[in-house]
Amino acid sequence: MGDRTQQEQASPEVCKRVRESFDRQGLMTHLGARITRIGPGRVHIELPARPEVTQQNGYVHAGATSAVADSAGGYAALTLFPEESDVLTVEYKINLLAPAVGDRIEAIGTVLKPGRTLTVCQLEVYGVRDDGERQLVANGQQTLFRVNRPAE
Amino acid sequence: MGDRTQQEQASPEVCKRVRESFDRQGLMTHLGARITRIGPGRVHIELPARPEVTQQNGYVHAGATSAVADSAGGYAALTLFPEESDVLTVEYKINLLAPAVGDRIEAIGTVLKPGRTLTVCQLEVYGVRDDGERQLVANGQQTLFRVNRPAE
Amino acid sequence: MGDRTQQEQASPEVCKRVRESFDRQGLMTHLGARITRIGPGRVHIELPARPEVTQQNGYVHAGATSAVADSAGGYAALTLFPEESDVLTVEYKINLLAPAVGDRIEAIGTVLKPGRTLTVCQLEVYGVRDDGERQLVANGQQTLFRVNRPAE
Amino acid sequence: MGDRTQQEQASPEVCKRVRESFDRQGLMTHLGARITRIGPGRVHIELPARPEVTQQNGYVHAGATSAVADSAGGYAALTLFPEESDVLTVEYKINLLAPAVGDRIEAIGTVLKPGRTLTVCQLEVYGVRDDGERQLVANGQQTLFRVNRPAE
Repeated sequence: MGDRTQQEQASPEVCKRVRESFDRQGLMTHLGARITRIGPGRVHIELPARPEVTQQNGYVHAGATSAVADSAGGYAALTLFPEESDVLTVEYKINLLAPAVGDRIEAIGTVLKPGRTLTVCQLEVYGVRDDGERQLVANGQQTLFRVNRPAE
Repeated sequence: MGDRTQQEQASPEVCKRVRESFDRQGLMTHLGARITRIGPGRVHIELPARPEVTQQNGYVHAGATSAVADSAGGYAALTLFPEESDVLTVEYKINLLAPAVGDRIEAIGTVLKPGRTLTVCQLEVYGVRDDGERQLVANGQQTLFRVNRPAE
Repeated sequence: MGDRTQQEQASPEVCKRVRESFDRQGLMTHLGARITRIGPGRVHIELPARPEVTQQNGYVHAGATSAVADSAGGYAALTLFPEESDVLTVEYKINLLAPAVGDRIEAIGTVLKPGRTLTVCQLEVYGVRDDGERQLVANGQQTLFRVNRPAE
Repeated sequence: MGDRTQQEQASPEVCKRVRESFDRQGLMTHLGARITRIGPGRVHIELPARPEVTQQNGYVHAGATSAVADSAGGYAALTLFPEESDVLTVEYKINLLAPAVGDRIEAIGTVLKPGRTLTVCQLEVYGVRDDGERQLVANGQQTLFRVNRPAE
């Protein structure tokens, strides 16, 4: 999933499907996260560094970092699935590389290996300052399971 | 860290230290999590299943599950560290075994291997119903780094 | 998978199936590993600490430790699957807790959560001395995928 | 660790140090693995697909794949450490993305985040055919610990 996916935009149908699912994630709203880019096989989610998402030293909590990374990976996979699919996290692993300082964090989920049943994503999280400075603060890997969404 | 730790209570000094740190974690308060047991090398954290912590299907979000599991493991390690220590998450890996249904989830962090610099914890998360029924919904493994807390 | 599985023996049919598959694993033979117990949902594999399996300091190489742990988990799952099933490793994560000293290592794979498609195992590896002393040297978690074995 | 490291060669002193340590790894010799490139923060190791490294279906065993990936990551880190350092694997996680077919596998370890105590590497393994076709067969992430090597 090379450079192409970094610039391309997913189709309007896919974007709509991803946003609707994201809006149903109570946790993302509660944390203050928002989707900022939806490409084919790649999704960006940003989370402002508010007191509500901190650990004991005032940095963004590993759990908040992981939560947005997990959602970014899940939606990256969803962009490649047929309509009426849903995605569940099987597992993920994340390394916290540096304190998540900055004004916000940006999680990028990228499909590394799509599959009919299982999809593997890479997860990257950057600490971003309003002046544009960025630093990789977490890196992970995630396995996802595709399921058929029950018709409503 | 066998049966002994499942029943024993940590010392008042340790409990106080853990609770004070937990209370500084903005994320835990914001999610509605609370510490329910502090034993030597083992800490329990509960999270009520509110709409604020859900994923797209109304189950507890993998990110919320992970957040409380991560904190439970971190504090389990902290109970074994000397005063003026702090703990940082190096990395963790978590398998989501079943949809986190129930009225609340309970995360249990247990020290598997304490160390001077690195400590490894096991993470378990149960879905718990008010009638007492419990089901293992997530299982993980975590590496932690001990640092000296700067004097205030 | 509690105490029951630690003592019980799998059925002769299951034991035969596991041993036949194990014997086809060229790597296990080449390393000198052997299956020492096959219970329902739990398999033990031992590996003598020979120079052929060491890392640069003479301890058992993390890769050898992982290899037997991976096989132990895979066969633990296989004991619970219907005949004509095969098992593939989706992913695993392993912490090396201590140098793998001793006369041999013993890997124990235990099914934590069986499933129709995915099965999750816990992996433990002990360093064992001929005088019986044992030490946990590695701990991991593994996700497996069940496939139907093509008829021969 | 961008494009620069993909082409650059490590200094003769570093190459010598890495090769000497690699040659002491009994497992690597026993498996038939060899180092094929040593760059600053990046090391390649190849393993021919012989019957001695297979799992039950004749593909390269996940354990063999992991072993060379683990060594590649460890030596990638070692290239960045001062002399008289040694490196231990704290943990790693690896996804097996596809059956490791081909005439050999090539593991590439790349330092993602160097550190004084802990270093995090990305692990990639490709199945390579003699005609040059390559496929990513495994992807992982590894945490390493730097220690001072005892003077001899």
